[in-house]
Amino acid sequence: MTMIICMRTQKIEHKLGIPSKRLLIKQAKRNEHRKLYETMLFDDVIPFWMKHSPDREYGGYLHMLDRDGSPYSTDKFAWPHGREVWLFSTLCDEVEKRQEWLDMAKLGWDFITKHFFDKDGRVYYSLTRDGKPLSIPRRIFSETFVIMAAVRYARVTGDKEAARIARELFRKVTEWVETPIAGSQKAIPGARDMVTMAIPMIMLNVTREMMLLDGETPDLISYSDKCLEKILTLHIHPERKLAFENVAPDGSLMLDIPEGRFLIPGHAIEAAWFILQEGMARNDQSLIDRACDLTLWELEFGWDKKYGGITYFMDSEGRPPLPLESDMKLWWCHNEALIALLHCLKLKGSNEFEEWYDRVHEYTFNLFPDREHGEWIGYFHRDGRVALPIKGSNWKCCFHLPRHLLIGWKILKEMEGKKDEG
Amino acid sequence: MTMIICMRTQKIEHKLGIPSKRLLIKQAKRNEHRKLYETMLFDDVIPFWMKHSPDREYGGYLHMLDRDGSPYSTDKFAWPHGREVWLFSTLCDEVEKRQEWLDMAKLGWDFITKHFFDKDGRVYYSLTRDGKPLSIPRRIFSETFVIMAAVRYARVTGDKEAARIARELFRKVTEWVETPIAGSQKAIPGARDMVTMAIPMIMLNVTREMMLLDGETPDLISYSDKCLEKILTLHIHPERKLAFENVAPDGSLMLDIPEGRFLIPGHAIEAAWFILQEGMARNDQSLIDRACDLTLWELEFGWDKKYGGITYFMDSEGRPPLPLESDMKLWWCHNEALIALLHCLKLKGSNEFEEWYDRVHEYTFNLFPDREHGEWIGYFHRDGRVALPIKGSNWKCCFHLPRHLLIGWKILKEMEGKKDEG
Repeated sequence: MTMIICMRTQKIEHKLGIPSKRLLIKQAKRNEHRKLYETMLFDDVIPFWMKHSPDREYGGYLHMLDRDGSPYSTDKFAWPHGREVWLFSTLCDEVEKRQEWLDMAKLGWDFITKHFFDKDGRVYYSLTRDGKPLSIPRRIFSETFVIMAAVRYARVTGDKEAARIARELFRKVTEWVETPIAGSQKAIPGARDMVTMAIPMIMLNVTREMMLLDGETPDLISYSDKCLEKILTLHIHPERKLAFENVAPDGSLMLDIPEGRFLIPGHAIEAAWFILQEGMARNDQSLIDRACDLTLWELEFGWDKKYGGITYFMDSEGRPPLPLESDMKLWWCHNEALIALLHCLKLKGSNEFEEWYDRVHEYTFNLFPDREHGEWIGYFHRDGRVALPIKGSNWKCCFHLPRHLLIGWKILKEMEGKKDEG
Repeated sequence: MTMIICMRTQKIEHKLGIPSKRLLIKQAKRNEHRKLYETMLFDDVIPFWMKHSPDREYGGYLHMLDRDGSPYSTDKFAWPHGREVWLFSTLCDEVEKRQEWLDMAKLGWDFITKHFFDKDGRVYYSLTRDGKPLSIPRRIFSETFVIMAAVRYARVTGDKEAARIARELFRKVTEWVETPIAGSQKAIPGARDMVTMAIPMIMLNVTREMMLLDGETPDLISYSDKCLEKILTLHIHPERKLAFENVAPDGSLMLDIPEGRFLIPGHAIEAAWFILQEGMARNDQSLIDRACDLTLWELEFGWDKKYGGITYFMDSEGRPPLPLESDMKLWWCHNEALIALLHCLKLKGSNEFEEWYDRVHEYTFNLFPDREHGEWIGYFHRDGRVALPIKGSNWKCCFHLPRHLLIGWKILKEMEGKKDEG
């Protein structure tokens, strides 16, 4: 009887435009999360990098940072430089053109243009503090992060040289990506043909960034189509409800070798929201649906039922995945999952996404934030013990976390504005 | 009063040649451990590899083995092939010439000579099951393990071609080792000069193996001297009581970069017993003393005071070591430590070594042996939870464990025979 009354009351409220209790709770939660994202991004994470990463002596960034922000190495890597320039330029592009953010972006961009290019226009993998080359890259990621930096930096500064570099490097990378770089691969070319999802994934993202510079030109759309096709038809296997990192060039599974069974659920979910972003930009519901499905599949497969959190590496057939860090919990997988889930929530709003969002949100914001020194601790053992307390390395830098907080904050604001229909 | 009587009794026992209670306990322990080593080596570990590793269809070994011995991949790597041929040949060389062991060695050696060499005489890093090359090596370890295999195989079979291959490959490797292999290194040559202990270490061991073939020739002794000098004067820093994996070419420490602070206590202890072995062969007490010191230093630094066991990777300055598997416990570090400690015990017999031996023995034999499927589980988290239950990979294979059991068994037998003087 009570239940019936409640249901009737809810119906009446709906008709009258009065939000139900459930809706109110949800809106309060969105509001609380929006504030959490806002505070963490603008009062914690960004200030952390603004305080600790500028190298006022040599230019560029110090990004090999211990838990308290002190550098444990002064070597400079291309990925963190490209990514941090991208982040600060993107803040200027999408939030407001604050001088201190522009200065941060300029500090990194000037160092990149001064030191990171070799004579053939490739981007070194790492340099000494003063810009002496230390190592060359094996793949194209150094270049892709520099392209992303260049696009955003050009947009917010009007720097024509940055725009030129973005266009030229993009053109070169689309060529390099087709052939392995001579001498840089340990595998014998042609011995066992295998394609890896990371390449079309990053290129899909970079191409979308290029469109911010040059618009949705036929060339860029066509390149983006190619990347989408590779991810969707080769790597994502709906019959298995999984995305495989490495497959044969025709997309067939290589389940007899560990590389072929190798899964990175957090990476697949990052791919999901790259696809979803394309779906939104193109107003393509089918793309959105496929991305939302992939997000759920990977969460269901990758979620650690015992300790919670998204498992780093897995084997599709339940064999032991070989990397020793496989069962760890890494910050970035959770950043990517929350971006994907917030997109899904906004677009679909089903209970299924709401439940996963709550679960991932709670786990993530309980575990990773460093309440003592700010920013997030990135590396935890399976059971939630700290494995590596650093704030920055050649991998962890000013990127996944602030990108998540920025995108998440914007989505949560939109959802607040949208008056969730629950 | 009681104590005085006891002491008097002990003295009398000594004079009469009656062993003290302490001595009896020690002898009983040696006897028990000798039996443990014997049983584990001949009734468990060797049978495990004889059962699961032969590839009767294509030749060579299947060494990517899951916990129960079933292969999770059929790819074939050079390290495990060289090492397993070495192990079975060495059993024939040092225990007895059993036909089944000779057959095992031949199965691997024939596959190596048929498939593993490229046209320039380099050894491929990995092949498909049927011998198609998959990847080239970046350093010289593929070759060094094949040299070790060739030496022992030649000794026990009289195979002249194996002896020729050993000599030729040894000559080539001593050249290759001086210059980085073109195109195989990611670091830019000369950008930051750094030498790594792994190279003189393996070459010291390989040179000692070569002496089993050609005797202590002036050339081999001179090469061995060079390796010893590098390890002792560049890498081992008595002022720090540590061996540094990576140092500047003049031996100075590079403490401003993570690579320069990088320590692998189990690896340094392996270096210690290679040096100790040289000391014994050359009857050089100073080498023996330095090796015994290094063993203690590294145990004191590397032993996990909280959970026990030897920590895998460490940072000399207490900064976070970057590899994510740093705080894990790996089987091979404990194999190497027990070999070193048994040598030290036999040669020095002090309470200090006895205590460390007991501690490492107890930890190791409690944690690693797989009581269900035989052999050892190789990879544990810091707190003793299983991280990776595999028996074999491209790293873990028929080597560290049976080598330890074989050497340890021989030392324990010698100590039994020696009638320990306590």
